Amino acid sequence: MNNRIINILRQGKPEEKVKIQGWVRTKRELKEFTFIEVSDGSSLANLQVILNQDLPDYNNVIKKLSTGASLAVEGVLVESPAKGQKIELHAQTITIYGECDGKDYPLQKKRHSLEFLRTIAHLRGRTNTLGAVMRVRNACAQAVHQFFQEKGFLWVHTPIITASDCEGAGELFTVTNFNLDNIPRNDQGKTDYTEDFFGKKAYLTVSGQLEAEIMAMSFENVYTFGPTFRAENSNTSRHLAEFWMIEPEMAFCDLEGDQNLAQEFLKYVFKYVLDHCPEDMEFFNLRINNTVLANAENIINNEFARITYTEAINLLEKCDRTFQFPVEWGIDLQSEHERYLAEEYFKKPVIVTNYPKDIKAFYMRLNEDQKTVAAMDILAPNIGEIIGGSQREERYDILESRIKEMNIDPQELWWYLDLRRYGTVPHAGFGLGFERLVQFMTGIDNIRDVIPFPRTPMNAEF
Amino acid sequence: MNNRIINILRQGKPEEKVKIQGWVRTKRELKEFTFIEVSDGSSLANLQVILNQDLPDYNNVIKKLSTGASLAVEGVLVESPAKGQKIELHAQTITIYGECDGKDYPLQKKRHSLEFLRTIAHLRGRTNTLGAVMRVRNACAQAVHQFFQEKGFLWVHTPIITASDCEGAGELFTVTNFNLDNIPRNDQGKTDYTEDFFGKKAYLTVSGQLEAEIMAMSFENVYTFGPTFRAENSNTSRHLAEFWMIEPEMAFCDLEGDQNLAQEFLKYVFKYVLDHCPEDMEFFNLRINNTVLANAENIINNEFARITYTEAINLLEKCDRTFQFPVEWGIDLQSEHERYLAEEYFKKPVIVTNYPKDIKAFYMRLNEDQKTVAAMDILAPNIGEIIGGSQREERYDILESRIKEMNIDPQELWWYLDLRRYGTVPHAGFGLGFERLVQFMTGIDNIRDVIPFPRTPMNAEF
Repeated sequence: MNNRIINILRQGKPEEKVKIQGWVRTKRELKEFTFIEVSDGSSLANLQVILNQDLPDYNNVIKKLSTGASLAVEGVLVESPAKGQKIELHAQTITIYGECDGKDYPLQKKRHSLEFLRTIAHLRGRTNTLGAVMRVRNACAQAVHQFFQEKGFLWVHTPIITASDCEGAGELFTVTNFNLDNIPRNDQGKTDYTEDFFGKKAYLTVSGQLEAEIMAMSFENVYTFGPTFRAENSNTSRHLAEFWMIEPEMAFCDLEGDQNLAQEFLKYVFKYVLDHCPEDMEFFNLRINNTVLANAENIINNEFARITYTEAINLLEKCDRTFQFPVEWGIDLQSEHERYLAEEYFKKPVIVTNYPKDIKAFYMRLNEDQKTVAAMDILAPNIGEIIGGSQREERYDILESRIKEMNIDPQELWWYLDLRRYGTVPHAGFGLGFERLVQFMTGIDNIRDVIPFPRTPMNAEF
Repeated sequence: MNNRIINILRQGKPEEKVKIQGWVRTKRELKEFTFIEVSDGSSLANLQVILNQDLPDYNNVIKKLSTGASLAVEGVLVESPAKGQKIELHAQTITIYGECDGKDYPLQKKRHSLEFLRTIAHLRGRTNTLGAVMRVRNACAQAVHQFFQEKGFLWVHTPIITASDCEGAGELFTVTNFNLDNIPRNDQGKTDYTEDFFGKKAYLTVSGQLEAEIMAMSFENVYTFGPTFRAENSNTSRHLAEFWMIEPEMAFCDLEGDQNLAQEFLKYVFKYVLDHCPEDMEFFNLRINNTVLANAENIINNEFARITYTEAINLLEKCDRTFQFPVEWGIDLQSEHERYLAEEYFKKPVIVTNYPKDIKAFYMRLNEDQKTVAAMDILAPNIGEIIGGSQREERYDILESRIKEMNIDPQELWWYLDLRRYGTVPHAGFGLGFERLVQFMTGIDNIRDVIPFPRTPMNAEF
């Protein structure tokens, strides 16, 4: 492996001989010599390279080194006289791998809109913003694994293709092996799914939770980290048809343990990214959204507030605010309510627990009041809901009747019910959308700009 | 978090007070006291717990503690007089969370076939074999991330849903939002995909390589680790419809660098798993396949042999063996040929390079002989092909004509070709199926037993 530019910028010493490889970001021709800035994608900052006229074939080399061209440079590090950089590279030999036609190249020196960059997603990683996003995204993902692995959680791969449609988290994509021009029909003229690849209707998963619960019932602590899907026709800056989700699940854990873990998790991930990508995070704070660093510090440094849904409703009813959506016990909290609680009342992250059962999923544990379930949502300032979780219903009879209440056929969930028959245990977990987390961390407005190749209605390019 | 049993077994000291939680594996009632073996999924070995008659409500507790029941035990560690275990737990208080009806519970004390266990995939993690598999699977996955992250590779999430079908690696699953009973048709009576969610035909990905190449052209070194799909109707012990794949991609890398990285990668992963799951690996060697440890050591300790395809053909032609598939230059190597090379001739892993272009993919770099491409396959003793990779064609004109030769519309790959127009660089990568790797590591025969919830023809249960 050659020297990565990030290591040279951080640790390079004058007079060291190095070889770097990368792409030209800018070129500045002066009379006596030429400056080029080279990036290899390892850091926000480029390495400045000085090419002197005594370099072999100088004029020809310079001509070819336009923005986007790829090259290797061998040379010697020298202290930089320029402000804001400590080191630069004095070139001794240059190898050009690929030129880049300046007339054609879509990434010109000027600033490009993020909308435009989406149309050239195969090149946008070469820009400052998308470069920083993808490095932070990687650090964030690594923080997730490291957090759970240090605690002895197993990473479990729950299925992507599923025959179960009972999670009810939105519209499902169908997965089929049929030729859609010629679908086998049964006697009633309906699709004959017994002829399809899996012998029944199959979908793309909307959540790995139910299968993660299976794994927690054998391995105690597990987490998923994989793609999930929604076929919702939502063309918004917060929705993707395909996104990655993280779902830890813990046996022998109640709602309090769930809250503790979620808080510890968020603090860990934000701290990890600040520690590992300081330049990228400063860039976001400076260029994208100036609340990014304050938000991160707020999450890292504060004990999260904890209130029940009922307490939250009381607070909202008592406050001297007029909300667009009227507040009363039983409503789903709207964004304006969540923002008031996190940003104005607590001014830090707040965990709201014990929501009315009617607005939550069938698998959440019924509380003694028979009206609420052991659910939790974490709301963060300037961010909104970032995590949702619950203690799961571990009592067979209550779970079965909740399933029937929701008009789900218990036969469809025979294995889920089985877990409550054979050594059932209190257990809990939570879920968060990975792209939302990266959005929150970077301050990037549109979720399409925090995933390499977004899938949205009418768009599956690249 | 409570104490995990693996930590108690490894580090627990007599007279320590501990609390454990888990599921009863076996119970042995003697006159004066009762032994139970408890597992929490953290290790192959169970913790032996001794319940004395002076325990409150002894008889009732014992009755409820059948195989499969879940409980918490608080007590004191004592040195074990029994052979093969150093420590056991003397119970002081027992909390039973969930009983388990012995008549119904499918996991009886007897040995169950792996085939049977597949039908109860929601419980099979509680058996020795599947427990060990899932722990090794997790360690293996963690080794993958750690290996690449230490080297500064970014984990990139390439898309699962894709509109491109030109990889040609097998049959594709269709992803659609249509109601299959009522599909919109165009003038010719064909499916009108412009009405579908993505506005065109969409599939589940068979490989993230082409998109990984995009990311390598911005970030130099990247890897994918995500699910991929094949709609092949192959009911074999080596095929899954849904499996996880690892695909590193390196800019500024040729076939030699590719081989070096692949060798280092395999050694690292095998060593990591031996270091982190020694008991599980011994179990596989003892109970599943007695070549497992020798294979791992062979991979870890040997420099892999390296030969060209042409040399391999010469070796096979010269050897005193009759193969079922006759050997001649141009053939695809069959399993019997690969086994001869790795097991009999070299007796260690061997990397075969520079295959005939006609049996390899369009994106592999054409060699100067115009007949072969810069491909590589790694063959391992008792394992067969474990990795396939190549240097990619970075020259625009040659790539374009290879694409046309394969009857692919270059328009479909406009972005892939663009990478060769704007600062193209030599680059290379490889791919391996994660489940195959776990199979090889554990000696498990059937690939359905190394993934939590296998998807195969006519099966998408759980």
